[in-house]
Order: sequence, then C-alpha cells, then structure tokens
Amino acid sequence: MGLAAATNDVKSASDGEFRLAVGALRTLTGEDLKKVDQEITHSARSSVGLIPELAGHLAAAGGKRVRPMLTLAAARACGYCGEDHVKLAAAVELIHGATLLHDDVVDGSLLRRGLKTANVIWGNKESVLVGDFIFSRAFELMVAARNLKVLQILSAASGVIAEGEVLQLATQNNLSVTFDTYLAVIESKTAALFAAATHAGAAIAEAPAGVELAFKHYGRELGIAYQLIDDALDYSGFEASLGKRTGDDFREGKMTLPIVYALERADAEERKFWKRTISDGVQRSEDFEEACAILARTNALGDSIACARRYARRAIDELSAAPDNEFTQALVWLAETSVQRVS
Amino acid sequence: MGLAAATNDVKSASDGEFRLAVGALRTLTGEDLKKVDQEITHSARSSVGLIPELAGHLAAAGGKRVRPMLTLAAARACGYCGEDHVKLAAAVELIHGATLLHDDVVDGSLLRRGLKTANVIWGNKESVLVGDFIFSRAFELMVAARNLKVLQILSAASGVIAEGEVLQLATQNNLSVTFDTYLAVIESKTAALFAAATHAGAAIAEAPAGVELAFKHYGRELGIAYQLIDDALDYSGFEASLGKRTGDDFREGKMTLPIVYALERADAEERKFWKRTISDGVQRSEDFEEACAILARTNALGDSIACARRYARRAIDELSAAPDNEFTQALVWLAETSVQRVS
Repeated sequence: MGLAAATNDVKSASDGEFRLAVGALRTLTGEDLKKVDQEITHSARSSVGLIPELAGHLAAAGGKRVRPMLTLAAARACGYCGEDHVKLAAAVELIHGATLLHDDVVDGSLLRRGLKTANVIWGNKESVLVGDFIFSRAFELMVAARNLKVLQILSAASGVIAEGEVLQLATQNNLSVTFDTYLAVIESKTAALFAAATHAGAAIAEAPAGVELAFKHYGRELGIAYQLIDDALDYSGFEASLGKRTGDDFREGKMTLPIVYALERADAEERKFWKRTISDGVQRSEDFEEACAILARTNALGDSIACARRYARRAIDELSAAPDNEFTQALVWLAETSVQRVS
Repeated sequence: MGLAAATNDVKSASDGEFRLAVGALRTLTGEDLKKVDQEITHSARSSVGLIPELAGHLAAAGGKRVRPMLTLAAARACGYCGEDHVKLAAAVELIHGATLLHDDVVDGSLLRRGLKTANVIWGNKESVLVGDFIFSRAFELMVAARNLKVLQILSAASGVIAEGEVLQLATQNNLSVTFDTYLAVIESKTAALFAAATHAGAAIAEAPAGVELAFKHYGRELGIAYQLIDDALDYSGFEASLGKRTGDDFREGKMTLPIVYALERADAEERKFWKRTISDGVQRSEDFEEACAILARTNALGDSIACARRYARRAIDELSAAPDNEFTQALVWLAETSVQRVS
C-alpha cells in the first residue's frame, strides 16, 4: 500500500466514525463526565494565579477526554452505582494533562490541538512546575476515593509512564531500535494509562477477577492501537485536522514504528538517508516529504496501521469476558473505530 | 549586627553542633535509616539504565537525610513499633529528591553539594522525566504503607510544595514582595514537607490528636527556620562549606528575606541598586559583594537569622505536648542547632 492509499485508509469512508464512537461514549457517560470536568476545574484552584490560568489553557486545548471516559464506562459496565469513579476518572485525566505539559517541554513542541503550547505561552519553568502541581492534585483525588487497590493501580501506572518517557528519550535518534523496544515505549508511555483507566473503573466496581483483568487488558491493547495510529498520523501530513504540526516525530528523531519498519526494509541509499536525518539529526526542508515517500514505497506506514488494527482487534476480543451492556458495546465500538481516526 | 558578625553568629562556636544533632538523630534511627536507604535504592531500579544512574547521582550528592529522619523519629517518639514508617520516610526523601531535580532545571543550577547537578550532566529533559519517575515511586511507596490518613497528609503536601514553587517563580524579580508573601513561599516549598514528614510519623503511630498536631506544627516551624537559614547562607559567602555557589539566589533575582528586609530599609541609592540587580536582572561582577555589604549595613542578614531563631523556638515549644523520650529530645536539639548550621 502506498502513502496515499494508507492515508486514505485512515481517512476512509468511516472517517467520522471514531468521532461518532467518542460521541456515543460521551452521551452514555453524560452526567458523570460533567462531574469529571468540575473535579478537574476544582483541582486547578489556587491562590497562585498562574496555576488556574495555565491549567485552564490545557483544559481549553481540550482533547477528547477519552481516558476519563474509559474509567467511567468501565465502572458502569461493571454495574458500579457509586460516585468515586468520577474522582478516579478526573485523576486519570490530570495525570495525562501533567504528562502533556512535561512532554511539550521535553519535545520543545509549539502547538497542541491548534493552540500554542503552555511552554510557548508561559515558559518551560512554568510548565514543569504547574505539571508537578497537577500531578500532585491527581494523587489527592485518587486518595479521596479511599480505595487502596485502585491507588495501587494508578500509582504504579504513573511510574510506568515516566519510565516510558525516559526510555523514549534514550532511544531517540537511535537507528538500532527494534519493534520490541518501540512496543515497550508505547506500552509504558501510553498504554499503561489506558490500562489503568479501565482497570481502575472495573476495580472500583469490584468486578470479578476475570472481568477486571479483561478491562485492564482491553485498555492496554486499545492504548497500543491508539499510539500506533498517533505515530502513523505524524507522517500523514494533514496538519489542519491534527491541530499540530505533522512531521514533529521526524524532526525530533523519534524512533516510531513507521521508521523502524522502513529501516528494516531500507536499501543502502535509504539507510544513508535515515542515518543523516534521524541518527545525525541533520535535516533539510525537503527531507520530511522524502521520508513520507520512503514510508509509502516500503509500505512502512501501511504496515504500521495494520499493526494498530491487530491491537484494536485484541482489545475487542478481551471484552468478550465483560458483561454485555451498552457501556461495553460503546467500548467495543471505540476500539473498532480507533484505527480510523484522523485526530 | 554587621555581615561579619551575623556570619560569625551562624558560624559560631556551636558551628558543629547542628552536625552533632544530625548525627545523634542518625544514631537513634540507625537501622530504620538503613532500611530507608535500601527502599530508596530499590525504588530507582529500572531496566532503563538512565534512571538508576541519575537517581544514584542524586543519592550520592547525598544530603543529610534530615526529612526521612524526621518521619522515623516522630513515629518512634510516639511509640510506633511497626515497619511502615520506613516506607513513608523513603517516600518523603523521594519527594524531596524529585523536587530538587526539577528545581535545578528551573533555576539552571550548576552545583549541588559540591557535585555537578543532574541537569548539567544528563540534561534538562532527562532531569524532568526522571524527576517524574522518582515522584511516582514516592507515591507507590506511600500506597504500600496502606494507610489512608497518611496518604492524605503526604499527597496534600506534595501539591502544596508545587504550589510554593510556582509562587516563588511568580515572585522572582518582584521588589514588592512582602514578608508575608515570602513566608507563604517558604511555608509551601519547604515547611510543608517538613510538616508532612513529622505529621506522617505521628499519624502512622496513631498518636493522640494533640500529639499528632504538635509533631505537624514542629515540622512546619522547623522547616521555616531551616529555609530562613538556607536563604541567609546564600549571602554568607562560604562556598566550600555549602558545596554550592553562594549568591545563586541573588543572581536569579529571588526575593528572599534578606532582600525583603533590605528593601524595607533602603535609601534612594540602595533602591536603585536593587531595582537594577533584582528587578531588571542587570548584574555586574562586583554586585554580589555590594549586595552583601548592604545586607550587613542594614542588618537585613542579622534580622533574617533572628527570625529563623524565633521559628526554631516555636518548633521546640510545640514539642512540649509530645512524649518526653530520647527521640523527642533529639528533635528538640535538632531545632536548637538548626539555626547554627553552615550547610
């Protein structure tokens, strides 16, 4: 499959279906999700004006709230009738938000979802410290749910995320990165939080062990699929729909799966190209286009998307052990369409 | 009191007494403290080599382990016989360590305790991400102690610390900072962790409410005294004994108490000096010496140290509500000598 075909496949007739699946989840979790937003706003309160200001910008840049919805839906799918899942869902989103602030500093990112990043507006120092604040608030919220099992799940996940971020940094510009190492990076930095999100939801609902595990694994496989698509989208070139610059991963020399595949298939000329652009970090303005062309020619992009599809399928399979209800069905649909998203 | 006298007062005949008081606490907490070190080393384990490497450097740069000893001593002073205080003490030290890593990035510090800072050796990105990892590990350790009250104490403290760091950043270079604002900064960024350290120790021991509160307040007052001395030492000019560059606060335009006092007492000429060096950040090589001379002339440094003494006295008074035993006595001695330390 060439680049155009692969990209078409991502932006297929079912282009808007992921959006619909997210919308369905939003409708289902309706009131709960509103309370999550209130918890998040409440968490950012501080007499130090910069904190609510910067946190507000982060919330405005928004995002789809996929992670907190995972917690809410998993809890409800398991028959939970309480209110503590709202705190956990808010904590999950805050951990994600704190990670984004630090990520953007580390990557020197300029745009996120079409808005200037906090590090551009307020500065790196401010982003690091407010990120720490938000991270602490996430822990306070978890503790307020007063469930040690869930605390264990979420605190362990946050350690794994940070470990994944360090591993990613250590593998940057390194052409010898294999599929396994790449998988370890995205399992840690992305899938661990997805897994903790659904796992915490099932755990707070006191679901039977098999069901709890099914939700945990669903989150992990979905998270891997999600990140695989994210990494593919960075080479798909639709800047407007992404709300961020495409080609960022390439410019930063990140060893994502398209590059790993392309390197496995590279001829001498292409190898030289990757060595210069990724390993040595010497890039010219036309290099990103050339990178995309190689990814198309070697089918590296198409195969990355196919890989995402396999993980989405595994996520869906996991839910066969879950109670069959509208929440579970919405999660199945989310996984099905997650590999068709364009943002 | 002039600069020389004030400094002499800090480096008084009882110069080594703080060291002796720390040593006494170390002897008393002996086995427990060894276990804390083991927990800390264990926490930094990771297959990502950079993590134990950087965390090991942080541990080697060492420090006196005052905070974890506070937790251990408070717990034992309240008659605690279990083992969970070791986890809490390690968590307290890890929160402190993570904060140092991020602080050094934010301040652009080059030296800490005579060693190059992690940001100088490995880079800012690495320090931010490994700091996040260590912070997460701190939470995992707290959770492992399985005590919701203590979790609440420590997670709330970590939020307050981050808030204090942001407030400090927001007040940098701002000549209108008052004593109250300065106090708010150090209460948050330093005293909150001291207070949580002793509070958590008393709480895990299930001390009566009045005793628990006494230990919490002891920690807070001691933390304020400790930071007041820290801020005074930055103008005392004994680089070798501090293991860090003196004058760092001045160069960064930090509004610490000596400057707040000096500004209250400044004539027109001095005001112009502080405006240029602190507010506008325009500094020449001879400015630090001139700053020290003004602090001496106006007695701003001496009065800062006197202020520290008052807080140390309040810390000691708090412990009159605590059980009278060798642990409590060691904590009293620590507070007494904390205002005589030179590093």
